[in-house]
Amino acid sequence: MKALVYLALGKKALDERPKPEITSPTDAIVKITKTTICGTDLHILKGDVATCKPGRILGHEGVGIVDSVGAGVTVFKLGDHVLISCVSACGKCEYCRKQMFSHCTTGGWILGNTIDGTQAEFVRIPHADNSLYPIPSGTDEEALVMLSDILPTGFECGVLNGKVQPGSTVAIVGSGPIGLAALLTAQFFSPAEIIMIDLDDNRLEVAKRFGATSTINSKDGKAAEAVMKMTDNRGVDTAIEAVGIPATFELCEKIVAPGGHIANIGVHGTKVELHLETLWDRNISITTRLVDTVTIPMLFKTVRSKKIDPKLLITHRFKLDKILDAYETFGHAADTKALKVIIEA
Amino acid sequence: MKALVYLALGKKALDERPKPEITSPTDAIVKITKTTICGTDLHILKGDVATCKPGRILGHEGVGIVDSVGAGVTVFKLGDHVLISCVSACGKCEYCRKQMFSHCTTGGWILGNTIDGTQAEFVRIPHADNSLYPIPSGTDEEALVMLSDILPTGFECGVLNGKVQPGSTVAIVGSGPIGLAALLTAQFFSPAEIIMIDLDDNRLEVAKRFGATSTINSKDGKAAEAVMKMTDNRGVDTAIEAVGIPATFELCEKIVAPGGHIANIGVHGTKVELHLETLWDRNISITTRLVDTVTIPMLFKTVRSKKIDPKLLITHRFKLDKILDAYETFGHAADTKALKVIIEA
Amino acid sequence: MKALVYLALGKKALDERPKPEITSPTDAIVKITKTTICGTDLHILKGDVATCKPGRILGHEGVGIVDSVGAGVTVFKLGDHVLISCVSACGKCEYCRKQMFSHCTTGGWILGNTIDGTQAEFVRIPHADNSLYPIPSGTDEEALVMLSDILPTGFECGVLNGKVQPGSTVAIVGSGPIGLAALLTAQFFSPAEIIMIDLDDNRLEVAKRFGATSTINSKDGKAAEAVMKMTDNRGVDTAIEAVGIPATFELCEKIVAPGGHIANIGVHGTKVELHLETLWDRNISITTRLVDTVTIPMLFKTVRSKKIDPKLLITHRFKLDKILDAYETFGHAADTKALKVIIEA
Amino acid sequence: MKALVYLALGKKALDERPKPEITSPTDAIVKITKTTICGTDLHILKGDVATCKPGRILGHEGVGIVDSVGAGVTVFKLGDHVLISCVSACGKCEYCRKQMFSHCTTGGWILGNTIDGTQAEFVRIPHADNSLYPIPSGTDEEALVMLSDILPTGFECGVLNGKVQPGSTVAIVGSGPIGLAALLTAQFFSPAEIIMIDLDDNRLEVAKRFGATSTINSKDGKAAEAVMKMTDNRGVDTAIEAVGIPATFELCEKIVAPGGHIANIGVHGTKVELHLETLWDRNISITTRLVDTVTIPMLFKTVRSKKIDPKLLITHRFKLDKILDAYETFGHAADTKALKVIIEA
Repeated sequence: MKALVYLALGKKALDERPKPEITSPTDAIVKITKTTICGTDLHILKGDVATCKPGRILGHEGVGIVDSVGAGVTVFKLGDHVLISCVSACGKCEYCRKQMFSHCTTGGWILGNTIDGTQAEFVRIPHADNSLYPIPSGTDEEALVMLSDILPTGFECGVLNGKVQPGSTVAIVGSGPIGLAALLTAQFFSPAEIIMIDLDDNRLEVAKRFGATSTINSKDGKAAEAVMKMTDNRGVDTAIEAVGIPATFELCEKIVAPGGHIANIGVHGTKVELHLETLWDRNISITTRLVDTVTIPMLFKTVRSKKIDPKLLITHRFKLDKILDAYETFGHAADTKALKVIIEA
Repeated sequence: MKALVYLALGKKALDERPKPEITSPTDAIVKITKTTICGTDLHILKGDVATCKPGRILGHEGVGIVDSVGAGVTVFKLGDHVLISCVSACGKCEYCRKQMFSHCTTGGWILGNTIDGTQAEFVRIPHADNSLYPIPSGTDEEALVMLSDILPTGFECGVLNGKVQPGSTVAIVGSGPIGLAALLTAQFFSPAEIIMIDLDDNRLEVAKRFGATSTINSKDGKAAEAVMKMTDNRGVDTAIEAVGIPATFELCEKIVAPGGHIANIGVHGTKVELHLETLWDRNISITTRLVDTVTIPMLFKTVRSKKIDPKLLITHRFKLDKILDAYETFGHAADTKALKVIIEA
Repeated sequence: MKALVYLALGKKALDERPKPEITSPTDAIVKITKTTICGTDLHILKGDVATCKPGRILGHEGVGIVDSVGAGVTVFKLGDHVLISCVSACGKCEYCRKQMFSHCTTGGWILGNTIDGTQAEFVRIPHADNSLYPIPSGTDEEALVMLSDILPTGFECGVLNGKVQPGSTVAIVGSGPIGLAALLTAQFFSPAEIIMIDLDDNRLEVAKRFGATSTINSKDGKAAEAVMKMTDNRGVDTAIEAVGIPATFELCEKIVAPGGHIANIGVHGTKVELHLETLWDRNISITTRLVDTVTIPMLFKTVRSKKIDPKLLITHRFKLDKILDAYETFGHAADTKALKVIIEA
Repeated sequence: MKALVYLALGKKALDERPKPEITSPTDAIVKITKTTICGTDLHILKGDVATCKPGRILGHEGVGIVDSVGAGVTVFKLGDHVLISCVSACGKCEYCRKQMFSHCTTGGWILGNTIDGTQAEFVRIPHADNSLYPIPSGTDEEALVMLSDILPTGFECGVLNGKVQPGSTVAIVGSGPIGLAALLTAQFFSPAEIIMIDLDDNRLEVAKRFGATSTINSKDGKAAEAVMKMTDNRGVDTAIEAVGIPATFELCEKIVAPGGHIANIGVHGTKVELHLETLWDRNISITTRLVDTVTIPMLFKTVRSKKIDPKLLITHRFKLDKILDAYETFGHAADTKALKVIIEA
């Protein structure tokens, strides 16, 4: 089968690879119909993800059709239309029992990382019963690809951890796909203000269209001052970090109101400065989280009832044999204005 | 009247000062019967608290008898036996309505800081109705002095923010009075393990007596390794920082388990390093808090029902005219083994 | 001044009464600009509210201008434009400290009940600092009258107690003003389905316009069956009772899903049957609540940011000297299609 | 093998039955070492449990040794020492994903109900991976039998649903084994008062020994008055119903304080009267729950750390071939003073 393979630092190829097989009774093989590329895939190619070794088929998002199941799979059968979670969950370990699927002792984020992923014609899904979700007939596949990772990540790590409330004031630092996913899902809770902060005016334009009540281009280094001015010097109830570098996290520290929350989504490669000398008495919380995808069933319901339109995030579409073009487009988002690209397998 | 006055950097005196008077209808004047010294008072003397100016009477803890009340005070009257909260609360502002008394727009921690405090024969208490608590007759005054600040601080900032649970594993970094207050109140929730970490063997001995299940002297710089070994390399569910320096906060970062909580109590004078490169995907929370003293009524009930014995924290007793000796004793705790000292006015 | 006075069972009159005066330092006198009539006022006239005696000026909702304040009032001054909460709160008692203003030991629901109310030219507001809310200039008064009682009641007793969630399924039994207030505020949390149940097709039509996803006319006695069919025999996550009679509460018992919530808003005059023989093992919660109006500040923000339009509830407008007509219109809602009527003083 | 079989209304026998076999890949066969009798078993014999048909081997509690496992079992293997949960959980369905194992669509309470149970030499455990718990070597088996059902039931349905807090006032109506389990586990949260109510002075004596701060014999019909007197006419923060009849539930309605919680544990066979005419405005919650046993891991930790001693509940011990005597003893608890009886297989 065709598959996008990580070859070496900065190198990838669309290769021919053997179709995966069931290796454990709880596995399923899924024929991919649609997948996508994540910012994390770009990080892997840059060598930022030590656990992912050359030779790996990338990709941890997608929808497809069940091609075969192991003897221990009871929820799914051949021909089922399914959504793939980016996180595999055994449903049995200490962490799964606490709904912390991200830390499943035999799962977590392994797809396209420590085992082969979804940017291929077929993928093996371990712990299939707790890692796949049935798609009702007649549902739009493309929209659901956004539920594999990006929407639950924005929602769980940003919105839920950030305790967004009716009437509250939210700032989201980073208006890339993940920040926009937080923006879309924050609106489930009817905050009064959502301030979107980024360096790219195009992305801020998109944010406006997606529901941001105001935007700040932070390239002048004065975003903190701008937020404080907008909030009568009070700061924001929730500051969501959706970039993953020290400057953006430290911006969140400056704008969080007393009693507020900093919800980190960004993948950080280095330490940040935590200014406890000003924050120790401000009654704030800071949270980190690798998405658990426990909200996929809830998100399904919000999609079906049209409380959210995940397709807003999709800007480009490619066939699997053009996936290198898709990477090109996604990797140059500032020029191509790409958010999420759909790969049709 | 006699009062302990902060004179200048490192200088204090037992001075004669005029008895305070009602200046607002919501004020009460309280005749102090017992007060104490807080680590923060030592910080003020070192010049660490910019808001507190020379000339200030120190002290923000104590019990006493209501001497007079303003026209707007409805809960208290002359002769009432009262506990003084270290935090003054108007009960009306945005923050008080959210039970964040620490950030009351006309109160918060002002006693012995921006207005004269309790280390004196009399003190003026603003917003008396929400800043004093009635003491039932026959209750032990000494024990209750611990409810002005230290027990609610350990409980609210450490135990509640740290989400201590039945069966959970807790580490408390710092076995001084505030760490011990966290240790005492953590036991309200029946954790399985409480690991106490400090540099001072005497204080660790005290911790053992107060209920710690194990202790670690961190002077060898290997406390993190020791905790990980004790917890089968899992880390602790709750790490309580009760010192206020980078090294102790960063120790908490190293020992918190996935899904766990770092609850900061310490007063920090400088930034710390937050290792988001290892913590971003660990699903943790970090909290900061200036005590709100909202749990004083709850703590009253636990004292009355003997679920906790606050007097355990009291090691020395002095008359007000010997308060300089009391400072001496409290300020050399490593030698004197002082925890909390009672000053009888 | 003119005032609507409850005279005797079924009797009321627009009378001349002396202007109220400050009787306690924490009182304010408010000149009413707009008020309204509540279903509870009709209950009083029917003799259902034992605490309200003949001679009482009715009304517990409204906005106005501060006419005078007692010496202990610090938040408000002459000329301030204010919203009146239906619940008076001292801000100091055990219940106020828990944000249970409804049970304030010297307040709670007293306006137009045990003390004279707002259907008059002036009203005395006890505990003014915690019972009035400042109205920003340029805000629409009419809309805010809905924040005195009906919107916080629907929100606190129905939506918050009912734990409405993104994607969840809600049934609201009773499509009168209070059920509609629950319907409007439930949408803050983006539920997937809101099923509205009533006997009156007009009110169900209104519910559709206000956001109900489906409606059931329960006059055939088969509402429970209809709900179960709509929910694949699962029942609803949240059932909100907004009528106050046994039949409607018992309908909620029949349609609540395992793990679901029954949130009672209705004022009940008689006991109901609780079918514990079927409910004991269904993991449900049932809640009751007299509104605390603690969410008024949050609701203010949602109105200002246009997350909700409270004016949707207003169907008729009258001058104070036509208040008897207003009662007539409001009391015959089935014919007049009245929801909330505005009385301009 | 030997097994206690429900034969017909009021009839049971110790019969010879074939050893159970694996019928699904997720099954395990467990050799029972110790089991016990539950009040529910007596209900079955009285014909109160319609789902349990004659011919059924009773029992849903116990510990044992894994005798064989199906191909899909990954957590357990031959020879493992295990605790059996009274509730079977697939870990995959909508309810299991919400930790509502009690409503697992292919599990829940089925053992000794719709499939053969634990009062036998061997038992088949479906969904073994999520329905068994590993017992660390050297742990006391007898104590752990109390974790199959009675302790999690008292804790989850009574204590957690009742939101017991440090300093709070709790009443437990019913001092049988399940009420006593609530009493023991309530103490995890350090309430100030636990009032135990029953008709049997012996059981109230036991309650005193187990930590009740006061007891009321309700045979004079004046328990409500007694509780109100003890609580300064305020009522209790948490009222736990641990009997299952209308009189005891209605007693809870009378004694719950404003803002309080009624947590039902009792298995009810008939409806009760809910006095909404007095409760509608009291801001209370009422909860029901079939135990989910999600707290078994937490309870394990509390046992290991000696925060609770489950053996306190064990009064008698029998060999399996004397199980009819055990039923006799357990069924006449008023005379025999039996709480829980251990059956050694």
